[in-house]
Amino acid sequence: MSGNTFGALFRITTWGESHGRAVGVVVDGCPAGLALAAEDIQKDLDRRRPGQSKASTQRKEEDRVEILSGVFEGRTTGTPISLAVWNRDANSSAYDALRDRPRPGHADYAYQMKYAIRDHRGGGRASARETVGRVAAGAIARKLLAQEGIDIAGYVAELGGIAAEVIPSGMDELRERVESNPVRCPDIVAAQKMLELLDQVRSEGDSLGGLVVLSATGVPAGLGEPVFDKLDADLAKALMSLGAVKAVEIGAGFESARLRGSSMNDPLVLEGGKVKFESNNAGGILGGISTGAAIVCRIAVKPTPSIAKPQKTLDLKSGEAAEIEIRGRHDPAIPPRIVPVAEAMMALVLADHLLRNRAARVDGKISCR
Amino acid sequence: MSGNTFGALFRITTWGESHGRAVGVVVDGCPAGLALAAEDIQKDLDRRRPGQSKASTQRKEEDRVEILSGVFEGRTTGTPISLAVWNRDANSSAYDALRDRPRPGHADYAYQMKYAIRDHRGGGRASARETVGRVAAGAIARKLLAQEGIDIAGYVAELGGIAAEVIPSGMDELRERVESNPVRCPDIVAAQKMLELLDQVRSEGDSLGGLVVLSATGVPAGLGEPVFDKLDADLAKALMSLGAVKAVEIGAGFESARLRGSSMNDPLVLEGGKVKFESNNAGGILGGISTGAAIVCRIAVKPTPSIAKPQKTLDLKSGEAAEIEIRGRHDPAIPPRIVPVAEAMMALVLADHLLRNRAARVDGKISCR
Amino acid sequence: MSGNTFGALFRITTWGESHGRAVGVVVDGCPAGLALAAEDIQKDLDRRRPGQSKASTQRKEEDRVEILSGVFEGRTTGTPISLAVWNRDANSSAYDALRDRPRPGHADYAYQMKYAIRDHRGGGRASARETVGRVAAGAIARKLLAQEGIDIAGYVAELGGIAAEVIPSGMDELRERVESNPVRCPDIVAAQKMLELLDQVRSEGDSLGGLVVLSATGVPAGLGEPVFDKLDADLAKALMSLGAVKAVEIGAGFESARLRGSSMNDPLVLEGGKVKFESNNAGGILGGISTGAAIVCRIAVKPTPSIAKPQKTLDLKSGEAAEIEIRGRHDPAIPPRIVPVAEAMMALVLADHLLRNRAARVDGKISCR
Amino acid sequence: MSGNTFGALFRITTWGESHGRAVGVVVDGCPAGLALAAEDIQKDLDRRRPGQSKASTQRKEEDRVEILSGVFEGRTTGTPISLAVWNRDANSSAYDALRDRPRPGHADYAYQMKYAIRDHRGGGRASARETVGRVAAGAIARKLLAQEGIDIAGYVAELGGIAAEVIPSGMDELRERVESNPVRCPDIVAAQKMLELLDQVRSEGDSLGGLVVLSATGVPAGLGEPVFDKLDADLAKALMSLGAVKAVEIGAGFESARLRGSSMNDPLVLEGGKVKFESNNAGGILGGISTGAAIVCRIAVKPTPSIAKPQKTLDLKSGEAAEIEIRGRHDPAIPPRIVPVAEAMMALVLADHLLRNRAARVDGKISCR
Repeated sequence: MSGNTFGALFRITTWGESHGRAVGVVVDGCPAGLALAAEDIQKDLDRRRPGQSKASTQRKEEDRVEILSGVFEGRTTGTPISLAVWNRDANSSAYDALRDRPRPGHADYAYQMKYAIRDHRGGGRASARETVGRVAAGAIARKLLAQEGIDIAGYVAELGGIAAEVIPSGMDELRERVESNPVRCPDIVAAQKMLELLDQVRSEGDSLGGLVVLSATGVPAGLGEPVFDKLDADLAKALMSLGAVKAVEIGAGFESARLRGSSMNDPLVLEGGKVKFESNNAGGILGGISTGAAIVCRIAVKPTPSIAKPQKTLDLKSGEAAEIEIRGRHDPAIPPRIVPVAEAMMALVLADHLLRNRAARVDGKISCR
Repeated sequence: MSGNTFGALFRITTWGESHGRAVGVVVDGCPAGLALAAEDIQKDLDRRRPGQSKASTQRKEEDRVEILSGVFEGRTTGTPISLAVWNRDANSSAYDALRDRPRPGHADYAYQMKYAIRDHRGGGRASARETVGRVAAGAIARKLLAQEGIDIAGYVAELGGIAAEVIPSGMDELRERVESNPVRCPDIVAAQKMLELLDQVRSEGDSLGGLVVLSATGVPAGLGEPVFDKLDADLAKALMSLGAVKAVEIGAGFESARLRGSSMNDPLVLEGGKVKFESNNAGGILGGISTGAAIVCRIAVKPTPSIAKPQKTLDLKSGEAAEIEIRGRHDPAIPPRIVPVAEAMMALVLADHLLRNRAARVDGKISCR
Repeated sequence: MSGNTFGALFRITTWGESHGRAVGVVVDGCPAGLALAAEDIQKDLDRRRPGQSKASTQRKEEDRVEILSGVFEGRTTGTPISLAVWNRDANSSAYDALRDRPRPGHADYAYQMKYAIRDHRGGGRASARETVGRVAAGAIARKLLAQEGIDIAGYVAELGGIAAEVIPSGMDELRERVESNPVRCPDIVAAQKMLELLDQVRSEGDSLGGLVVLSATGVPAGLGEPVFDKLDADLAKALMSLGAVKAVEIGAGFESARLRGSSMNDPLVLEGGKVKFESNNAGGILGGISTGAAIVCRIAVKPTPSIAKPQKTLDLKSGEAAEIEIRGRHDPAIPPRIVPVAEAMMALVLADHLLRNRAARVDGKISCR
Repeated sequence: MSGNTFGALFRITTWGESHGRAVGVVVDGCPAGLALAAEDIQKDLDRRRPGQSKASTQRKEEDRVEILSGVFEGRTTGTPISLAVWNRDANSSAYDALRDRPRPGHADYAYQMKYAIRDHRGGGRASARETVGRVAAGAIARKLLAQEGIDIAGYVAELGGIAAEVIPSGMDELRERVESNPVRCPDIVAAQKMLELLDQVRSEGDSLGGLVVLSATGVPAGLGEPVFDKLDADLAKALMSLGAVKAVEIGAGFESARLRGSSMNDPLVLEGGKVKFESNNAGGILGGISTGAAIVCRIAVKPTPSIAKPQKTLDLKSGEAAEIEIRGRHDPAIPPRIVPVAEAMMALVLADHLLRNRAARVDGKISCR
């Protein structure tokens, strides 16, 4: 147990169940002196909130964050920052029928086997609502990273097999396009097709998976602590800890299995007196340490497990085969909503390693990009 | 810093550079009373040792492990188990030319930027030789897992684009086939083609990547500590912490991005009074907790970065562009040798979670499969 | 940073400032299945609450705990238990004058030097109010320990030089006597003298220190993880982490420096077929592991630093010498109120080690007493 | 389990049994660029080595340290530093008689109860020989601290009730006096009396305890991570983790229980434009954070448990009462030899907190003294 804490120096502990009193997070290790207001956090929470569009669930939640500690006169004090969001719009009765019938593709059965008890309402701790704490904490990490010139952005690169093709290279333009449509796909033409497919799939009582790309620019060379707490290893853990993620790639990822060394290796070159890489198959990380190039990850997101179609399961009480149809407010696709959550996880990893890297050298210096 | 420890309860700390005095590992947290002899460890070390075939480097190393502590009269005592393997066959002069010229695709540049100093000989700490400690510790984890009926096996599923097609379903048969050929591919026909391609690529001074599949059977339901130390998250970190790995999949992995929910979800069914899953797209893990089904991971391994072809780099001293050709003993492909290393990482994660799960319930019981 | 988490498996993270919105704690790693209600926690919180008597401050706080997560239908679920207590009766204006004038014996100056910012109101994070989270979490630990037959009790053994002489040997009688008077001294005659001295010292604008003894019975042999996470080492850390504690003893403690080995060593004897120790100078711990004898600790508590007498300090703004007199609601002695807090810390250490010990042997057995 | 690692950023893992192959330590997290040679470490190891005088055991050991990794061309590289010392002069047969008869005051019984197996030879893991790893690692920490102007020194303040009275105030003079006599007492007259008492006690087959004082100068304000990883809390843990230590004081320690607040509080004053404390009852730490004043700790060391006098114990095999007399090479008093070990523990804590403090502020600045 005690698996609800993430990070070594910039460390978060999340808590809360979907239909409990509240969800929240304690951020311990945010350096003192960072300007921070509730709006900084609310902004990212609003991006993850459901009910904004046809692409996401219809549950209405205000999700107003409260800062309960750690901030004084608009600045962090170096003490733990406790954040809470109250649960309001929970209708638990819909889950009564599922109490003894584990939903396929969900954590129900595994939790029951592990703990012999679980809060089944709304998926309990295994609900996507748990990510509220991650996003809230991630927003603080982003502010810290912004001070160092580090920027993070993510987007839906593929949904139900429809791939984005036109991707803006600038972070600001990327962000603008991504937030311009409910599937968070920067390729507007592809986004339209995704929306149409989503409508169709929803009407069939089914769901879609997809791919999300994340990148971080401005990351200085030197972040990452080999040989286990490598930057890519920690990113992989952070992203794979999201319920719907089934695969994580860094840089060329799976494609690298089919490349020759002569194509895979990124040549080092000088540009205006600075070291650059001619390509970025490494995804900005070599030997588990950032190189100064953009950090690029890709994650595979499985289709929403809650579907209206009938599914085979069993009844834990009677011990007999059973069938369920899952009704209620469920995203027919997770990728659009996972974008801010995955960005938050990336921010948390980078903020943690930014601080850890301060101990790398006797003189306290850190590498320049 | 301090990133050289892995695991929470079954915890290892590795140390050593490629051309230093020795490499080794301290295993802290192995329960008392486990029968353990040097041969148990040597067996796995021999599998990772280079110089066994054309598919691997020609460096000759004995790699005899010494148990320096923690074992008394053939059993572990609950105190730290210190293991060391001496470095003998190191020829450092070949690396003189590379001291100031970072090899593309290698950790050289990143280490230099982080620490402002590095042992460049043989890649130093970033050498694959570092995995000796992982494999040695993993062998102990395997013994612990075997007591619980947990078995782990891996194989090369694809090399240079050539895919294995015939995969035995039994673990023993799988293992036998895998060890029957130098590319560790259970499909003998594909293995032959891989070997031919390897020969050709080596003669071109280039290298190949590939895919490795890992599975664990007999894992009881209940392992994994949500929401961050999920079993899949820790596996992803463990495997991504290997130098050449650029992607990690659990179960259906990337394929899941293109499935509908109705195909992705694994139905629960009863077989002989026991709960089973009709399919295993989840890869044996839901909500970050093992379900009792086989754990299945796949990793993408990049082509060996050390290639004989000329490559662009720069000279850190002069600050000017430079070219290098890397000579010496280098595997033209990493996947065959990474198999025992990746198995070791999987074993370490499972052993750690096996112990962690003992604290899951007040009564101290753990779930039955 | 990130020093606000305590414990390895039974792990707590506290948060909150004296005059902030609330104080609280997240308990991660409490095993699933433990019966738990708010009253279980409230009971201990009421014991630490000020305003109950002349021996403690007059601040009136309800200190009602809310369980925000981790409990379902009256039992813990294995997920994080989030507890919060709202701050109500805070009067911050009294602290305006102290903002730039660090109080001698307080953390003000040290916090300012470390973080360059601090919430000065009511001592901020360094306030004794921070211990609300410890006590709340400790109450859960106690329930877990009670299931194993482990009982903890503490008392004031000395106050302002007045020593308790008659100490009941039974835990229940001890507890009853301790709670019968406001100084929590089991010797009623000594308690009366302590109260008189307290009155006198308060009227002089001064304060008193004292000694607190803690004992735990029913602790099985085997708890403690050498060589660093020894049971006595973790107890020492836990108790020394309380603001007013300046010394920690285990068993004979300082007295042992003046004993000969032949008097210090506790002989092992058989009583009714069971192993017992003829004396308990070890305080129930040898080699950092519990022996089955009662665990006994003693702590020295310094006099309350907030006193009405004029004290020398400096003004951080003007950089000049200054004088302060501290007005307001302050305990003239901390020992009576620290008793439940120190008990909580002891409970947290024992609960953590109880769970850690489950991983000590391959067979999962733990030692019997 | 896994209790053999200490520290968060400057982190050590020790291993080894008294009569096993070797003892050693892995230091992970030492910043890169520190000048380090084997002699730096050997110097401190020589101070802890037995066999130097009548005040310590007659076992002859060379205790030559080998640096196996982490140092390149005379400087640390930021990778783990592995250190080993081989065991040579072990005579295990003397311990055969003790295998089933736990020695009173020793860890024998507790280890057996916890692990159900133990290496009984020479006390196994619970031997004082385990501290070789601590001292070796501590020597590296000291070098790191020296770069920041931090100096540590300890001495025997009392032995068998004989107290040192004349203590030099300068660190260098203190050290010189301490090393001038085998009991490590800076008061030469008292030292002579201690030696005489030691002789007498040894001839009686008995042993003595004592008090050791430790101080650190040059520590900047700001070290320590409230509310649990306070500097005093971590020091208490570090020192209490030494086998013979039964009490730890910070500053005025136990004396503070008898002081009034008006005497205990250290007034802040200005001296030459700098903030100073008029007294140092706090021992250099307030609220768990260093203040810039000297850090002062005192520990109580119990008498050596191995004594020649007959003692009552039991036979674990027969389950019957038994008697033992412990023969062999045993210090009649531990305090003189514990001085360098306790200094090492203090150095490890300070080095760790020095690095942790680098993450305290957004701007990366740390407080000036």
